[in-house]
Amino acid sequence: MREPETPPLRVSRTTTRVRYPETDRMGVAHHTHYFVWFELGRTELMRESGSAYGALEDEAGVFFPVVEAGATYRAPARYDEVVDIETRLTAAEGVRVRFEYAVTRGRGGPTLATGYTVHAACGPDGKPIRLPADLRERLLSSTGR
Amino acid sequence: MREPETPPLRVSRTTTRVRYPETDRMGVAHHTHYFVWFELGRTELMRESGSAYGALEDEAGVFFPVVEAGATYRAPARYDEVVDIETRLTAAEGVRVRFEYAVTRGRGGPTLATGYTVHAACGPDGKPIRLPADLRERLLSSTGR
Amino acid sequence: MREPETPPLRVSRTTTRVRYPETDRMGVAHHTHYFVWFELGRTELMRESGSAYGALEDEAGVFFPVVEAGATYRAPARYDEVVDIETRLTAAEGVRVRFEYAVTRGRGGPTLATGYTVHAACGPDGKPIRLPADLRERLLSSTGR
Amino acid sequence: MREPETPPLRVSRTTTRVRYPETDRMGVAHHTHYFVWFELGRTELMRESGSAYGALEDEAGVFFPVVEAGATYRAPARYDEVVDIETRLTAAEGVRVRFEYAVTRGRGGPTLATGYTVHAACGPDGKPIRLPADLRERLLSSTGR
Repeated sequence: MREPETPPLRVSRTTTRVRYPETDRMGVAHHTHYFVWFELGRTELMRESGSAYGALEDEAGVFFPVVEAGATYRAPARYDEVVDIETRLTAAEGVRVRFEYAVTRGRGGPTLATGYTVHAACGPDGKPIRLPADLRERLLSSTGR
Repeated sequence: MREPETPPLRVSRTTTRVRYPETDRMGVAHHTHYFVWFELGRTELMRESGSAYGALEDEAGVFFPVVEAGATYRAPARYDEVVDIETRLTAAEGVRVRFEYAVTRGRGGPTLATGYTVHAACGPDGKPIRLPADLRERLLSSTGR
Repeated sequence: MREPETPPLRVSRTTTRVRYPETDRMGVAHHTHYFVWFELGRTELMRESGSAYGALEDEAGVFFPVVEAGATYRAPARYDEVVDIETRLTAAEGVRVRFEYAVTRGRGGPTLATGYTVHAACGPDGKPIRLPADLRERLLSSTGR
Repeated sequence: MREPETPPLRVSRTTTRVRYPETDRMGVAHHTHYFVWFELGRTELMRESGSAYGALEDEAGVFFPVVEAGATYRAPARYDEVVDIETRLTAAEGVRVRFEYAVTRGRGGPTLATGYTVHAACGPDGKPIRLPADLRERLLSSTGR
């Protein structure tokens, strides 16, 4: 399901703890919450690039709805565990942005899940727009390649 | 915690099934989801009154943010159980609307939880406004008292 | 992302309404909730086959954790809209079960999203087990092919 | 709704950022998520007391289901804002534990909401049990009064 490994344009790390209501009757984090954690990851990556996503929506009128998302689950995450989310920006071309994620039990621990999301840049009317040049530049700068 | 019983201005019933991700590692529905079910109840009550809440926001520019909410839990709800939500409108005065809720295991079954929410009518700018007269009328009409 | 169309082994339909807390500040259902709706779909399909998933866990000790999940989003779902979830069982071999989903705006309306989940049958200890023969039979019987 | 101010037995502070899926179409955090944040607060308080809640469930077989919960909302929380959660343990008697919460915009910022939860200690069978003496002692010790 995942595309051949490409060198990421930018990498970011953040952590979260598994919340009680994120667990289900199987006793582990429900699979849907990994997509929430992925979002924490790309929010942090964008903040680090100097383009906080909230400001992007509110000030630049640029939205990044998810057009595709996927995950592969390898091991369960338990209540109150610290999980590490590594986010890699792997594409930022035309109207599309792609992020890939790896969730591990703590930093450097076993991989719990990997996944990806693809986003299409949109204006406030929901119509696709090309990535603004300055945004693309910030995303690709400094900690990039 | 609940105020003395007043005859409701309007009553509505709806049902939902407990969803898998609504359960937690205790094996039962997490207490936060009852507030989501309460919201299903008042959405249905408002739809029945002829004032669908979505249209109220989108067309009349009237919002009903929650200013107070509470619940008392008596028995757990389990995965895939049908729960019945009875919603009573108990006040609609000035800027305030109050709903009270009872969640039972099936219709007429044991009470799982009771609760209430208080809402303040607001305009799109978040400033309090008096309940529009026609909305108040619809809420109190027909199936009322 | 989706595999070549195979005739489903079993098909099921259910509906849900978009809940207020399922919407986000973009004004539409957040992409994570489609995975919750997919779960409503397969819960219903399994119930119709005579193997309610809750009983499977509680009585047979068979669990179906998600090992892979994906979705493609085409159009947004709005608050209080009725969405139709079509679930197709497309594989039930060895330890694996695969479901595919299409979410439409009402029955026969425009497609909002499609997706899939792959599950590995496990025992209470989390170890993979072959699909019990009687479960597999029920899943494939009657309304099948 | 809140009981007269009593000196807390123990106080704890933690923070979280408002997550995108916690916002709703009103553009602010949905009221149900404050109860999730309250839970983050008491999880932290218990960890600081030396009784991590997960271990309590898994090792001591003591559960703390919520029997009553309430919140008063004063101002909205927006996407990506850091909110500060102050948790006060205000009662730990017999089978009951009570926590009170204040959520502010950043440390010392304006109060967004206040609330409380009451919990009944239970055994694995869901039957009420007295608070284990050593747990009660840890909760009340050191940073207490």
